[in-house]
Amino acid sequence: MSRFLSRRYENLVPYVPGEQPQDGAFIKLNTNESPYPPSPLVLERVRDEAASLRLYPDPDARRLRAKLAAHLGVLPENVLVTNGSDEALAFAFLAFFDRDTPVRFPDITYGFYPVYCNLCGVRADIVPLREDFTVCVDDYVAVGRPVVLANPNAPTGLFLPVSDIERIAASNPDHIVLIDEAYIDFGGESAVPLINKYDNLLIVGTFSKSRSLAGARIGYAAACAPLIQDLDTIRNSFNPYNLSRTALAAGEAALDEQAYYTKNCREIARVRDETAEKLRDLGFIVTDSRANFLFIRHPERSGHDLYAELRARGILVRWFNLPRISDYLRVTVGTAEQMDIFVDTIRAII
Amino acid sequence: MSRFLSRRYENLVPYVPGEQPQDGAFIKLNTNESPYPPSPLVLERVRDEAASLRLYPDPDARRLRAKLAAHLGVLPENVLVTNGSDEALAFAFLAFFDRDTPVRFPDITYGFYPVYCNLCGVRADIVPLREDFTVCVDDYVAVGRPVVLANPNAPTGLFLPVSDIERIAASNPDHIVLIDEAYIDFGGESAVPLINKYDNLLIVGTFSKSRSLAGARIGYAAACAPLIQDLDTIRNSFNPYNLSRTALAAGEAALDEQAYYTKNCREIARVRDETAEKLRDLGFIVTDSRANFLFIRHPERSGHDLYAELRARGILVRWFNLPRISDYLRVTVGTAEQMDIFVDTIRAII
Repeated sequence: MSRFLSRRYENLVPYVPGEQPQDGAFIKLNTNESPYPPSPLVLERVRDEAASLRLYPDPDARRLRAKLAAHLGVLPENVLVTNGSDEALAFAFLAFFDRDTPVRFPDITYGFYPVYCNLCGVRADIVPLREDFTVCVDDYVAVGRPVVLANPNAPTGLFLPVSDIERIAASNPDHIVLIDEAYIDFGGESAVPLINKYDNLLIVGTFSKSRSLAGARIGYAAACAPLIQDLDTIRNSFNPYNLSRTALAAGEAALDEQAYYTKNCREIARVRDETAEKLRDLGFIVTDSRANFLFIRHPERSGHDLYAELRARGILVRWFNLPRISDYLRVTVGTAEQMDIFVDTIRAII
Repeated sequence: MSRFLSRRYENLVPYVPGEQPQDGAFIKLNTNESPYPPSPLVLERVRDEAASLRLYPDPDARRLRAKLAAHLGVLPENVLVTNGSDEALAFAFLAFFDRDTPVRFPDITYGFYPVYCNLCGVRADIVPLREDFTVCVDDYVAVGRPVVLANPNAPTGLFLPVSDIERIAASNPDHIVLIDEAYIDFGGESAVPLINKYDNLLIVGTFSKSRSLAGARIGYAAACAPLIQDLDTIRNSFNPYNLSRTALAAGEAALDEQAYYTKNCREIARVRDETAEKLRDLGFIVTDSRANFLFIRHPERSGHDLYAELRARGILVRWFNLPRISDYLRVTVGTAEQMDIFVDTIRAII
């Protein structure tokens, strides 16, 4: 820390993303990327766009927002696109959460939420998940403060039905209920249709996982128009050209080939459930994931040991050195072939 | 504004970027883009990268930072790359400027600085430029507060020699001196070599203008290692994957073909100076720009009229409805052919 850093950030501890080895030598099951490449039109449009990079992108991302809105069944004024969903979350924390009111979220969830609290000087009101990692919905009903929930949750993969999201949104009418749907396309049901019923409901999503575009950095927020306008005010006061021309082109093309991605998501869900069964047969505890990852624990092996032994055998998974989950691994669902290798490898280890 | 927006942003007025018509029907001299396409290797590398978009980018941008550092003559630990230089500015305002101490900058400069002040709750201590728009250096010497200067300044194009930047940095040792070098490659001299001498000196730059990559969103900060670490803490608490894979690839390739860009910058400077002479011959007041734009005023025509008449004839330039400069136009330097058309058109108008 330099002597110039503002004192409000003295204790800021940044988020630490999963390893990103650049050499391609690993079977990479550690950052919830899709095992499938982007669809053909994405490659074509990104390649076409290279020649236009001298020009600024459209700062209002009009074409991408129109296509995304149509896909989500809402209006363009209900969506904002961002440089990955992390940027949408950052803008939302800045815009809507205040020093005065703590923000409630679970103890086991996306590790960035407490970082955003620190960044924005907002207190985190952290409520433990149940012993089995399910969300106790009543902990979020009529709490008179903002709520942040990942649904499906990460790294547990567990999903709350939309009726529960609606109860939470309806019972906290004067506070933002932020639902992070980064993993919604692998078997969950989106709460986006509720945004026009609840003016406090804010949904965040991403093209990184289900649309094979982690490298393009495309996220979004969906909400009633006034909330989107507020987020846009923050965006335009921070970084108006937040999406590159190639990101805009990739996002638009992906929405034109939704069938390709829907098929991939179904296959990922199928391989996930099949792998979960095999792991249960090997004695693993496996949560009922609706995401593109599995969250697993072996009753007799420490999480760190398994992580290290997998790594030594060329398989990267995510291990969190955190209370309650340090014996778990989060394993991204790869192709059927990759998951066969994963299961064979972990069978050999245990 | 929704009823949920944090009260600290009640009066936040976002930056308004120049028009970005998406139809290509205009001669576009309004947002300081390069008239030249990116170099061949940039196109090739961006096209190659499309196939890898399913994977996250390197959040530490190690290859790009190493190449950029080598180009700037510093170490990788002295540079941070950002999603456009606006993001570097936003991170710097967040990291280093506090509610307690106002930040000094000129009345006529990049319009985003007061927006960042508002966003961060920092007071702006705005000092008028001299009548001829030159910076009075003494206004920034030993002022006991942070200083922000664009050099060359925008929209005036006027340049301060590095010796003046050094005086300002040396005389404010306990406050950040932020020099925004977005336009440095068109005839200015960079202050980057001073960053290892002054631990309070922070330089911001961009690939948007001189490297023909406005559409790729690549900016950077250069400073002593502790300042870069602080900015990186903010970045990793905001958006760790802030550059896409295509942005990283484009930036790396551009640094491998520096000769192409140096040649383009020389040609832009030549066309700029030639156009300036022609405009002076037509009776225009033209500042001595070292940037890739001209800042011009006609003694008998209002700035808005000229802007509107040019627009009606298919030429977009930038007009600012602001005190002191509302009779000026900022005209990006295009190709020699475009500037001939511009001069002919404006001759016909006046």
